[in-house]
Amino acid sequence: MEENEKQIIDFITNGHKDYFANITIDCVIFGYHELQLKVLIGKRFGSDGSSFPGGHIGLNETLTGAANRILKDRTSLDHIFLQQFHTFGDSAYRVREFTKYISPEEIDEFTLDNWLFQRTFSVGFYALIDFSKVKIKKDIFFEDYSWVDINEVPPLMFDHNEMLEKALTSLRNQIYHQPIGYNLLPKKFTLPEIISLYETILNKTLDRRNFPKKLMSLEIITKLDEKRNIGQHRAPFLYKFDKEKYNKALQDGITLVF
Amino acid sequence: MEENEKQIIDFITNGHKDYFANITIDCVIFGYHELQLKVLIGKRFGSDGSSFPGGHIGLNETLTGAANRILKDRTSLDHIFLQQFHTFGDSAYRVREFTKYISPEEIDEFTLDNWLFQRTFSVGFYALIDFSKVKIKKDIFFEDYSWVDINEVPPLMFDHNEMLEKALTSLRNQIYHQPIGYNLLPKKFTLPEIISLYETILNKTLDRRNFPKKLMSLEIITKLDEKRNIGQHRAPFLYKFDKEKYNKALQDGITLVF
Repeated sequence: MEENEKQIIDFITNGHKDYFANITIDCVIFGYHELQLKVLIGKRFGSDGSSFPGGHIGLNETLTGAANRILKDRTSLDHIFLQQFHTFGDSAYRVREFTKYISPEEIDEFTLDNWLFQRTFSVGFYALIDFSKVKIKKDIFFEDYSWVDINEVPPLMFDHNEMLEKALTSLRNQIYHQPIGYNLLPKKFTLPEIISLYETILNKTLDRRNFPKKLMSLEIITKLDEKRNIGQHRAPFLYKFDKEKYNKALQDGITLVF
Repeated sequence: MEENEKQIIDFITNGHKDYFANITIDCVIFGYHELQLKVLIGKRFGSDGSSFPGGHIGLNETLTGAANRILKDRTSLDHIFLQQFHTFGDSAYRVREFTKYISPEEIDEFTLDNWLFQRTFSVGFYALIDFSKVKIKKDIFFEDYSWVDINEVPPLMFDHNEMLEKALTSLRNQIYHQPIGYNLLPKKFTLPEIISLYETILNKTLDRRNFPKKLMSLEIITKLDEKRNIGQHRAPFLYKFDKEKYNKALQDGITLVF
């Protein structure tokens, strides 16, 4: 038996001593790269299915503690911007399919009483990460990870497509209340980058002149005396957020009506 | 033993055959009455503590199904406007104090292995109800219910004060995305009623001339040819929502910047 399989069997047999059975966490991790908003999906070990990374909550762990641990395990990043957005458990019974890891001789030990064969609820968190800083790590359940444009996400396992929709709706509704732009963009960015990001999240076309003008008149972003060289004759100016003014605008609930 | 106590003992002993152990639902029920935004709190049977109404999720029940059942049990109302807003379980271990219902002779049967003595997570829903239509019903755990102004809520059990704060933040953030005004106001209302409601939720003073003017120019509310008699020489005009225009504004994400 491979090392990986041994670990899975151990988790199935003994995991209930460390984790809650009926409640899990799933993470929709957003990254922004080359003008595309992307999410991280994992291909499940020994299966054709893909899903968002997730995991169980330790018996002595807080919800956000568990979400941070899972995120660090996957992305190697600490201090990630993280928001709980919805708890799932309605659309299907979400019974996990662990049977495929177990040989017929072993199946007797793992009856339907096993902690993993029960219906689960999942607390969904979305995370915003600086794409350039992530180092993806595998775990025992996922053999591979990839970044997928939010418009090209394939059918996922469980109710994870619905989860993506809900996460996007939350991003959209919270774009004026949470520092979403700040956490997805690199420290220094071009105007096309911030415009495209807001267009993607809001799912509409913005006025390419008025939108940055408004952001600058509110002093949410400021122009740097610095350009990015992206080819001959093309060197757009760079901008950065004024974090103080940006936070104040978010607190005041200043909305940008486009 | 009283009938009520018998039912409680039965729930402690056999409830795990019907309900999930580690995950519950709590409902912050908002009602608007005499220019005050109020919440429903229950006084726990045999205890001085109060909390929001809640309950366990049936093994074959959806999350929203369970929330609707709990709401109907408490308020006698069907088809209530209901939104899941946050899942709790971080701030305390939320171990339930069921020991007080059990006599010392019985305590042996109810060891710490009992399903109700475990740490629980709670999915918070807020509900918006038409205050005039509610008939409060008691259940085995609550001996009394009362409506309390959101600014006069006493210290509650568990993490329920934090729950109220989160519910109010959700109302505030969602006031331009969800039909919150529509569900809290009576069918026909006066301008002071809608202004006060928005002021309470947004926690700021609105311009008493411009706010209704803006709502009317967007045709979200329309003036009726009807007045309410509230005393000698005082008969303010009544208004109602144009539900179609209102829904369109919410979908378009039209924000009212005051």
